[in-house]
This record gives sequence, structure tokens and C-alpha cells, in this order.
Amino acid sequence: MDDGTEPNSRSLAMLETPCLILDAAKMRRNIARMAAHIAPFGVSLRPHLKTAKSIAVARAVMASPQGPATVSTLMEAEQFAAGGVRDIIYAVGVAPAKLDRVIALRRQGVDLAIILDTVEQAEAVAAASRAAGLRIPTLIEIDSDGHRGGVGPAEPDRIVAIGRILAGDAELRGVLTHAGESYGSRTPEQLRDWVEIERNAAVSAARTLRAAGLPCPVVSVGSTPTALGAVDMTGVTEVRAGVFVFFDLVMAGIGVCTVDEIALSVLATVVGHQREKGWILIDAGWMAMSQDRGTAKQAIDQGHGVVCDLLGRPYPDLIVSAANQEHGTVTIRPGSNATLPDLAIGDRVRILPNHACSTAAQHGRYHVVEGESDAVQAEWLRFGGW
Amino acid sequence: MDDGTEPNSRSLAMLETPCLILDAAKMRRNIARMAAHIAPFGVSLRPHLKTAKSIAVARAVMASPQGPATVSTLMEAEQFAAGGVRDIIYAVGVAPAKLDRVIALRRQGVDLAIILDTVEQAEAVAAASRAAGLRIPTLIEIDSDGHRGGVGPAEPDRIVAIGRILAGDAELRGVLTHAGESYGSRTPEQLRDWVEIERNAAVSAARTLRAAGLPCPVVSVGSTPTALGAVDMTGVTEVRAGVFVFFDLVMAGIGVCTVDEIALSVLATVVGHQREKGWILIDAGWMAMSQDRGTAKQAIDQGHGVVCDLLGRPYPDLIVSAANQEHGTVTIRPGSNATLPDLAIGDRVRILPNHACSTAAQHGRYHVVEGESDAVQAEWLRFGGW
Repeated sequence: MDDGTEPNSRSLAMLETPCLILDAAKMRRNIARMAAHIAPFGVSLRPHLKTAKSIAVARAVMASPQGPATVSTLMEAEQFAAGGVRDIIYAVGVAPAKLDRVIALRRQGVDLAIILDTVEQAEAVAAASRAAGLRIPTLIEIDSDGHRGGVGPAEPDRIVAIGRILAGDAELRGVLTHAGESYGSRTPEQLRDWVEIERNAAVSAARTLRAAGLPCPVVSVGSTPTALGAVDMTGVTEVRAGVFVFFDLVMAGIGVCTVDEIALSVLATVVGHQREKGWILIDAGWMAMSQDRGTAKQAIDQGHGVVCDLLGRPYPDLIVSAANQEHGTVTIRPGSNATLPDLAIGDRVRILPNHACSTAAQHGRYHVVEGESDAVQAEWLRFGGW
Repeated sequence: MDDGTEPNSRSLAMLETPCLILDAAKMRRNIARMAAHIAPFGVSLRPHLKTAKSIAVARAVMASPQGPATVSTLMEAEQFAAGGVRDIIYAVGVAPAKLDRVIALRRQGVDLAIILDTVEQAEAVAAASRAAGLRIPTLIEIDSDGHRGGVGPAEPDRIVAIGRILAGDAELRGVLTHAGESYGSRTPEQLRDWVEIERNAAVSAARTLRAAGLPCPVVSVGSTPTALGAVDMTGVTEVRAGVFVFFDLVMAGIGVCTVDEIALSVLATVVGHQREKGWILIDAGWMAMSQDRGTAKQAIDQGHGVVCDLLGRPYPDLIVSAANQEHGTVTIRPGSNATLPDLAIGDRVRILPNHACSTAAQHGRYHVVEGESDAVQAEWLRFGGW
């Protein structure tokens, strides 16, 4: 089985910049930490692969080469299915026109489940199931945080109405929720509140279905912050989380990881200075970093990323404070007394991202290193698109 | 010569969403408008292809299939060279490690020029030219707006020092500047000021070189706002601009185009509602739109984009007010009295982007339509990477 890896024995100093670097040692520690954290709860981990988009990373984080896994696009479902994954939830409310691709994957032997939150969608899924002669497993999306989709907690009748349609001609597999608002947590107490809000929303919806005589085998919750913040998962059967594999500066700002645990960075080259302004210019702009500025709303604004040396060790208070398409402007963080490091044109740095999902999406491959080494061990391919 | 186009006769209703739509009729009008605007000045247009990243679009905008053209990465230079372009400026300050790829393209017969702003870089280019037995044509980057790189207007000695090194063993081709700060213009007067600041910086640097007995055949300026705002180009030999090919909401906010002239949009499908909140959920989130929020600093904040019907006609005051990775939340603009359109699950909309460069970068191809038609005429491939 091709796992999208290519042998490689170059050093970081030889790579074309900008490019994406993955510290696989940190990645494995992050994966082990999540596994150890949720083990006592007796729930399964269904990692969200929208961050990784790489079969090599998927295999490192999934419980088995067959899954389980979560995806955000049908392209991810198809790519991971081609890599041998057999147990997938496509966790974005389904558009009826996408059911053909869902059915095609199921006919290939992939247990692909979908989610939805309206009677109209449920009727479309039931009709497509009848027409295809198979039952599409479907979870009802529950709105635990008022953030985007899902049936609200005060709408038990709608949950039951959707459940009855699915149980008729499709397959009612359970309920699913995601408290994305947990990303806004500023204190451990706020995070614990989101953990309980998320769990309660899912467990209560499951109770509603069961009280109506409907099945609800799967009760799926999760995000990286709520998974790592959980102290009680009673009633939950599985946890979804994705960004914990790499972590990022937003997660460090929430407090669920340290900056040292961030496994992903962008390698860049110094291409200029404006010495009187205290600026170092690098060849990683927003095309390489993305325009995600998730830390702008946190206590510490990390600009477009934290600047590290070639081996991934952060310089004190050095950030990418501005970015154009292919230029980054590196400065000392405003208010800091730190000194600008003496970086010459041609020197290389690594930038830790605000948001692993969006920065990784700007790149076609991971260049893999192991810890504080400049030896590139492998290239792991990424895919994009829908 | 393969131009990256594929025959296609599908309708917009049949495409997988999200995907990128290009109205080629609007694109041709935008290109013609720029050509007509700069024709009286007797300067050449060197379009910046970092927005397009497509040989089909490049051929539509370049004066000839051989160029001239501007690029922001060596990947762009290599891809367009493979498509037959022979006259290219790589307009990001060069890192010495990238000179091997520059030399390789020049040996293939591509007149690729580079830019730089330090004595160190000039010495590296001179050394690489000597070692390769060819003269690498190089322009000195001038800082006209204090925004990122370039030799400042008060540093004539540095300009001459760099010029002498280049004229020795490389080739001093001229000076180049880009007043990116023109994007911050809020009034026509502010924009006219940037036009003159940009032109003066380049012309004055050229004068400095010539006064020192050095050549300066090329005086290159430009950005879409300053090119369209120019009323006098005395002393300038060429203009660079890129985003005008498509335009976008940031350009409309500056006032150099109307919303109706924007040629690029993202096709999306309705996947849910939160009716009591006035939300329509679509399957285009920041992965499809990018996280560029360039209009947030303008008089009219367009959120993550303006929502149009399938044929590209904007709904009144309807925007994507929030975005997650694969979800967009469509609402009426705050403060507006407009009514939410009655869009059902499965209906399709088109979203005009804040920033054409960053939104296009999220996609692998353009689906080409002609005006207010739902017939897809072609697919034009895009590339990414460095």
C-alpha cells in the first residue's frame, strides 16, 4: 500500500523555501497524550483528519489502519478510503447532491456515515437510500454552542422527526456535536463549562431519541480543547479531535498545549532587512502561513507566527508581525525588551503557525524531521480540494 | 502547446461544490480597461501573474504569449516558462540559494530578471553570474511606501553601491517599486498621492543611478490601484499590476472597480439553516474563500464575501458573515433592512471574494463561464507551491 511517503535524506538547509516541516517526534507525543487522556473514559477516538490530509499522518493517529476517522470533505473521504480507511464520518451537514459520492464509497465497502440537521435532508437521504437499495448511516447534528449548524437543545420534536425518517429507510446511527465555541475559552473554568455543555447536548439528544423508541448507538462529541479538558464522558461513545496531532499557537493560547509541543512549522529564508525599523524580511508570507490570525483575539497576539531557529527553538518574543503574499516581516513583539537576533540574508528560520489546519492547507507535503535535528527523514504528501 | 484548458459543457448546477468560477467575459473587459487606461502613457504592461497562476489566464492578459510578465515565486517562473513565457521578472527579493533555479531558467532561454535591495545580495548575484558564465539581469528594489523591502529614498549611496556591483559582473537592468500601501487608500486624493509617491521613488532612483554613470533601462512601478489611478507616467517604462484581471471586494472598496466587475466567485451549496437566527449555512468556509478579510478595514466590511445568485447577481446586503473550515454562515449585513432570500437546502449561490489572490489560491482550477450564463465553457488549471 502506497502511504504517500517518499524516502529522503536531505537537511533542512537544502530544502526550497518556504515549505512545511513536521516534527514527527512531537507529533507522536501529542498523539500519545490524547490517547492517554481519553483512555480512562472508555470511549473511542475518531480523529478528525481535516488537519492532516495525509495518509501517513492518518495512520499515525488512527487506532487501526481502517480507522475510525472523521473528515470534513468528500475528497478527504475518498482519499483516505483509497488509503484503506473503512470507518469514516463525513462531519459537515450533507447536501443532497453529494449523496451519489457517499453511495459510491459505501458500495466500495467503506462504512461512511453522514450528518444532517433538517427534515428535508433526512427525506433526501431516505429517498437516496431507497433508490440505491442500501441504508446510508446518518447521525443527527446537535447544536451545542449556537455556533453554526445542528438541531437546538430546545427542539426535541425535530430530533425525533428526523430520527423517525432516518430509521425508516436509511440508518439512524446516532447524534454528533462539536462545541467549536470552546476555542474562545480564556480560562480553565470556561473550558470545563464547554466540555459539559457539549457532552450534555449530545447525551440529552440521545436520550430524546431513545425515549421515542429510536436507536442511538453512537454519541459523538469533540474538539481538541473539549477532549483534553474532559473529566467525565458518561453517555458518550466516541470523541472527535484533530488539531491535537500538531497543536498550534491558538491551542497554546487556550492553554491545552505549550508552544514547545507544536509539531508543525514553516521553513523560511531571510531575504532582506530594514535595520532602522528593526525588521527582518523572510520569504514566507500569507501564501505559506495562511491568513489565519486566530491569536489576534487571545491574550497574546502571535502575529502571523512565532519565529524559531532552524531546529525549531523559539527566539525570545520574535514574531512575524506582518505578511504579504510572499513576504513576511519579522519583528520583536511590541512591548518586549528582547533583542532582534542577528540573522543574515540566506539564514533560515522556522515559523510556528496560528492554526495548523489553515497553514498546512497551503502546502502539498510535509518534510518530516525527528526532534531537534536538521535531517529530513521523509516527505509525506498532502492533498487538497473537494 | 498545452494551455491547461479542458473542454467542458456542464452547467453550474452540476459542479461539485465548493469550486472556483471565472467569468471570462468580465475578465476580458477588465483586461481591456487596464490596457486602454495605460495606452496613452506609452509604457508597457507587465502583468503580475501571482493572482492568475494559470497559463490560460496569463495568455489572456499578456501582450504576447512570450510576455512580459511578473511573478512572485520561482514555481510561477518555471510554470509560465514551460508555457512559453520568455520575459519574466521575479519580483520578490532574491535569496542567494534560489539563484541556481534562476540560472537554470536563463539557460533555457528565459529572460528571467530578479530584484534585490542589499549589497550582500548584489555580491551573491555577481558571484553566481561569474561562476555560471552569464550575467543575471537584476533590478534594484526601491522602497516607495515604507511597507516592506527596498532601498529607501534617502539612501542614494546604497543604490549606487548596489548598482556598481551589478553592473560589474551581473547586469543592472533598472529599478522597481511597488506602493502596496496604496491598498489603504480611502479617497481618490489619497490614491493619487500614492501614484505620485510610487512614480517619484522609481524615477528618482533611476536618476541617481544614471547620475553615477550607471545604466537604468527599466523603471518599473505598479499595483492595480496605482496603475488605474495614474494620470502621468513620465520617466516610467513599465507598469505591473495583477488583481485587476479579476478584481475583488477590496478593490471595489478602494473604488477602482465596481462589485459588478468582479470576475471571480466561489460556487457553494446551501446545507442548512438556523431560521430563528436568520442564518443560511453553505458548504464554502474559509478553506474555499481563504481567511482574507481585507474589507474589514474598509468603509464597508463585506465579511468573508458577497453572496450572489447562480448567475452572479448579488443579493441585496447578503454576505458570508462567518466562516469555519468547510462552513460559511450567510446573513443579511448588520444594519440593513434587506430580507433574507428564501434559499432551500441544495440551492446554489456564488460568493465574491475579499481578495482574488488568496481565494483563487485555495483552488486547483477555474470553471469558466461567459457572463450571466450557467454553462461551464472550460476548466483552466491553476498551480500552487514554490
